[in-house]
Amino acid sequence: MTKQSVAIVGAMGFAARDLIACLLRHPQVELVMLGDKLDQPLSLVSVYPEFRGQTDLVIENADASRINSAARIVFLALPHKVAQGYAHPFCEAGKIVIDLSADFRFDDISLYEKTYAILHEAKDLNKKAVYGLPELFRKEIRNATLIGNPGCYPTSIILGCAPLMETGWIDPASIIADSKSGVSGAGRAATPATHYVSCNESIRAYAIGSHRHTPEVEEKLSRLSKEKVTVQFTPHLTPMDRGILSTIYMNLRKDVNQEKIQKRFEEFYSGEPFVRILPQGQLPSTKTVSCTNFCDIGLVLDSRTGRLIVVSAIDNLLKGASGQAVQCMNIILGCEERAGLL
Amino acid sequence: MTKQSVAIVGAMGFAARDLIACLLRHPQVELVMLGDKLDQPLSLVSVYPEFRGQTDLVIENADASRINSAARIVFLALPHKVAQGYAHPFCEAGKIVIDLSADFRFDDISLYEKTYAILHEAKDLNKKAVYGLPELFRKEIRNATLIGNPGCYPTSIILGCAPLMETGWIDPASIIADSKSGVSGAGRAATPATHYVSCNESIRAYAIGSHRHTPEVEEKLSRLSKEKVTVQFTPHLTPMDRGILSTIYMNLRKDVNQEKIQKRFEEFYSGEPFVRILPQGQLPSTKTVSCTNFCDIGLVLDSRTGRLIVVSAIDNLLKGASGQAVQCMNIILGCEERAGLL
Amino acid sequence: MTKQSVAIVGAMGFAARDLIACLLRHPQVELVMLGDKLDQPLSLVSVYPEFRGQTDLVIENADASRINSAARIVFLALPHKVAQGYAHPFCEAGKIVIDLSADFRFDDISLYEKTYAILHEAKDLNKKAVYGLPELFRKEIRNATLIGNPGCYPTSIILGCAPLMETGWIDPASIIADSKSGVSGAGRAATPATHYVSCNESIRAYAIGSHRHTPEVEEKLSRLSKEKVTVQFTPHLTPMDRGILSTIYMNLRKDVNQEKIQKRFEEFYSGEPFVRILPQGQLPSTKTVSCTNFCDIGLVLDSRTGRLIVVSAIDNLLKGASGQAVQCMNIILGCEERAGLL
Amino acid sequence: MTKQSVAIVGAMGFAARDLIACLLRHPQVELVMLGDKLDQPLSLVSVYPEFRGQTDLVIENADASRINSAARIVFLALPHKVAQGYAHPFCEAGKIVIDLSADFRFDDISLYEKTYAILHEAKDLNKKAVYGLPELFRKEIRNATLIGNPGCYPTSIILGCAPLMETGWIDPASIIADSKSGVSGAGRAATPATHYVSCNESIRAYAIGSHRHTPEVEEKLSRLSKEKVTVQFTPHLTPMDRGILSTIYMNLRKDVNQEKIQKRFEEFYSGEPFVRILPQGQLPSTKTVSCTNFCDIGLVLDSRTGRLIVVSAIDNLLKGASGQAVQCMNIILGCEERAGLL
Repeated sequence: MTKQSVAIVGAMGFAARDLIACLLRHPQVELVMLGDKLDQPLSLVSVYPEFRGQTDLVIENADASRINSAARIVFLALPHKVAQGYAHPFCEAGKIVIDLSADFRFDDISLYEKTYAILHEAKDLNKKAVYGLPELFRKEIRNATLIGNPGCYPTSIILGCAPLMETGWIDPASIIADSKSGVSGAGRAATPATHYVSCNESIRAYAIGSHRHTPEVEEKLSRLSKEKVTVQFTPHLTPMDRGILSTIYMNLRKDVNQEKIQKRFEEFYSGEPFVRILPQGQLPSTKTVSCTNFCDIGLVLDSRTGRLIVVSAIDNLLKGASGQAVQCMNIILGCEERAGLL
Repeated sequence: MTKQSVAIVGAMGFAARDLIACLLRHPQVELVMLGDKLDQPLSLVSVYPEFRGQTDLVIENADASRINSAARIVFLALPHKVAQGYAHPFCEAGKIVIDLSADFRFDDISLYEKTYAILHEAKDLNKKAVYGLPELFRKEIRNATLIGNPGCYPTSIILGCAPLMETGWIDPASIIADSKSGVSGAGRAATPATHYVSCNESIRAYAIGSHRHTPEVEEKLSRLSKEKVTVQFTPHLTPMDRGILSTIYMNLRKDVNQEKIQKRFEEFYSGEPFVRILPQGQLPSTKTVSCTNFCDIGLVLDSRTGRLIVVSAIDNLLKGASGQAVQCMNIILGCEERAGLL
Repeated sequence: MTKQSVAIVGAMGFAARDLIACLLRHPQVELVMLGDKLDQPLSLVSVYPEFRGQTDLVIENADASRINSAARIVFLALPHKVAQGYAHPFCEAGKIVIDLSADFRFDDISLYEKTYAILHEAKDLNKKAVYGLPELFRKEIRNATLIGNPGCYPTSIILGCAPLMETGWIDPASIIADSKSGVSGAGRAATPATHYVSCNESIRAYAIGSHRHTPEVEEKLSRLSKEKVTVQFTPHLTPMDRGILSTIYMNLRKDVNQEKIQKRFEEFYSGEPFVRILPQGQLPSTKTVSCTNFCDIGLVLDSRTGRLIVVSAIDNLLKGASGQAVQCMNIILGCEERAGLL
Repeated sequence: MTKQSVAIVGAMGFAARDLIACLLRHPQVELVMLGDKLDQPLSLVSVYPEFRGQTDLVIENADASRINSAARIVFLALPHKVAQGYAHPFCEAGKIVIDLSADFRFDDISLYEKTYAILHEAKDLNKKAVYGLPELFRKEIRNATLIGNPGCYPTSIILGCAPLMETGWIDPASIIADSKSGVSGAGRAATPATHYVSCNESIRAYAIGSHRHTPEVEEKLSRLSKEKVTVQFTPHLTPMDRGILSTIYMNLRKDVNQEKIQKRFEEFYSGEPFVRILPQGQLPSTKTVSCTNFCDIGLVLDSRTGRLIVVSAIDNLLKGASGQAVQCMNIILGCEERAGLL
């Protein structure tokens, strides 16, 4: 198989860095172009010195027609609201477009517009976009030409809840997701909140009841469960580089036991290359999945309180962003799903 | 006022270290003796080099009669189950005994026995013990001679819930406390779980549904609310030295608004030297209270879900252990409550 | 003794934060005013929430005449080059001025001007300024009205070398100081270099051969040794909040043994409240001195190579900045030298 | 090419973990057996849960004859002094043996015996062992059947000095290597020194003038320079998982300039897949090489002091241990030298 040509638009953020690392070691693709909004070209190594000796790629001002000439697959690693403005030329040229922002994640465009407080400029494209969570939508992904790559928190929460959505076992109004993210989740911008001395030796909650990932999670879980799912979501900033741990609480509606739930999860994710259901009595940690595309899930049924507690762990930059995007690409290209991933 | 003499039994753990630091800078007490189970005396500095130049204290084999001769106040900083065996001689000699273990925390001795899987050897003493949480039991503490100093997680959770217990505003079966603790909470023992490389860059949950602090919290909250309170408690090990952040979820039973709840908390803790209710819109972090005896509390009412989310932050070794013990001592001695504390 | 009134100009940096903490717990001074360059007053708590409940101080636009009316002692916690412009009115009004910047640290004003690439605007004041390192210049500090408070790296290096300077035991051209600083040393500005994800899990050297603290160290050591001392200084950014560890290498010029050197250090610092010479065979760590004003020093003579290795550890924000400034103030006011310090 | 079979003896340490990870993703080898001293077989996943879903390998009690039947290449990841007792049967069976301990690193067996305070039990094997530093000994490695894989600190120091050894530019008695290692370098044993709370927020020096890596470095550099090289080596424990940064000081003996030295390093390592000489003015960090097999080197000539400062950075577990071992294996097998490495 001749190598597939890939371009990235938006090359300066943490997600782009990990995406570049995956693509450089991918045996079946070739990263041919890096674009961003730039006055002057910039060597990738000057931005991320870890790539020294591995590539001579230069980040250029993003030019759609040049990218269209060079690449078959285009990743958009741009901020929310910016990505939608870039998608059209690539989609029209028949490229496979994988967008890491929130812009093409929502089925309900008005929910997107409300959540992100903006009018969507590419409603036509959004209609054909597929939510890039392979464990739930692999079939749709296979034929997609535009992927809305899931958010980091949503990936960890949805994968932790999905097997239960059709069972009727849990109360869909009772879900509470208490998530803890490493600081890379706050992005590469230097702000008082990302200063080392602010973050180190400290954990704190933020955006309680108002984080924009809540509607994304609710829409996808509602779609799966065929009834309205409400999620109480609290993100926390944790003193570590990478990782999301979501501790998810659900009230049981029916009398099921631990074994049955354990089995349900194991069967639901049977054959999945990147989801690992831990044996009963074990719980995941972010370190175990760090720098990998895995999602580890542990389950505890507390019969005393009638609650199920699901704990899921991912690397926020890989399964929560770039790794998942590469997994989607692999599915579309028909590559081995683990190619380029660790 | 002549200085009050103080001894510590169990001088080798993290809690003892912070206790010693508080007592050394306390203007009205004098730390006269450190005891532990030892074949040979050991200089304190050899265990904790940070005390070099501040004290020449030696840790000796704990001898009740010598301690009774020397000290008026005795802190027990021993493991659970061990402390109860040490309390009698000091109590009988009329000392003020402040126990940092779980051994004298429970009103219901059979709940203690079930929780810690042991028969209590000092049931008589337990009857007169007072739970050393000043914000709730200051009056009882003032006249106590035996204090059961609260657990670290329970302090953060109880302070976060107490103002609501009598209001009838929340469903007492709905409380979920998702707590994140620094590694010092795991104690000073070197184990695979406390190895730097295990903890660093990782967060994980443990003891879901089975942690021994759950019954302690439930007993105290039930006592306050006069109805049975059930708490779903999940502790997490977080990559930092100190601190506990508890994110507490409660279903509202009545229609109250944020302002009313905010006011309730402010009034409930009015005049308290160590509880700080943050203004609406602000949330605490463990760093802000690190190395202090403060408990910071932030409140969010999510009207969409009908839940109240309380976030409380303490230093696990101070307000969660030694600082609180010193606060209790100050109350008993009639000292300024902040003496020796930061 | 009635409390002495203190003001701080430049209240927004890390050094100011620690200075405020020291002054708030100091029994003999009262912090009456905080100034900075501000359009609008700002509550201290809004900048540093850790002070909630401890003070209602407001940071105001710094006004010399108002400060002169209110305070007897003025700390300048301003950037280098800015401080010199603020000193005059306070000095003229007869205040005790303690400047934490580099502006009044140099005996040789032309060396300052070369090092900081600026013309000094207050040369007259610089003449009467005293270098605020109590272990070396306590007598001069006692009568000073203007203190040039030492730099963080210089404090750790000078204290590690001073006892040897007059002995003739070491080659003054051979000194190499390899220093490791926590990230707070880089200041409170949010930059790519202080981003959590840049610093965490990484150590790196910077400014090799060109750091501005080199001339400061060399000037003071040369003054002590009465011959020209050259120092090779390499600072490193280390993934921790606080602390400087300096590993200092010196070639022995004479045949001295470990015991003699050990004794020299112990005698040189005998009676010093904040310098601790560790017993032979022990080495300091930054943690042991964290949040204190101590400088711990360990000594190893390597007879195989003919080198002495001195390792010194301080808290960069306390003994390396604010703590030392308070120590100087205590000396000037005749307070107990440890007052306000831990 | 049919896959080469590989076994590891000593599967429980950090080095083994990284070695397994490299071998599992290596396209041309198959990891067939893991051995250790065990009463009962143990699944690899129970020791290192990160391998879940990637392999079903079990760690068995190491049995030489079974390993000899199964594998062509044997890695020994055992402690110093233990490895030498294991090597014979594999060497006699004609296996390629790559030993990660110190046991086969020394040319001078008596220096080994003095350094490690033990009689060497396999002197015959030691004679044919090759020091596995590919940048210096690639030719010998190619034909080796027994590799003494270099120590972590030595790798970082030797690579930083090697280009200068034959030039006569530097004084071979003047080398000072100040090295900073992440905590994984202290091994997997849970000790007070590796407790999270001991290491976090702290940096400290240890084993000054007495670390066993000093003779290893000196022997190899002396061999290169053809005169006696003495190295002053100080290791430091740094609060991070991985990485070694060595700051190396050398007195210049001749008048060379920065450009000449820069060019010397670039030419010396020209074509090397894993050594990156940074452009003038840039310095390495451990993060940039973390989880890779790279060694990054930055150079500063301080003409004021007449010293050259070389800063080298490696990942202690990869280029400093397992990655280097795999690189050696690749050379012996004739694989692409980067195979299995990141």
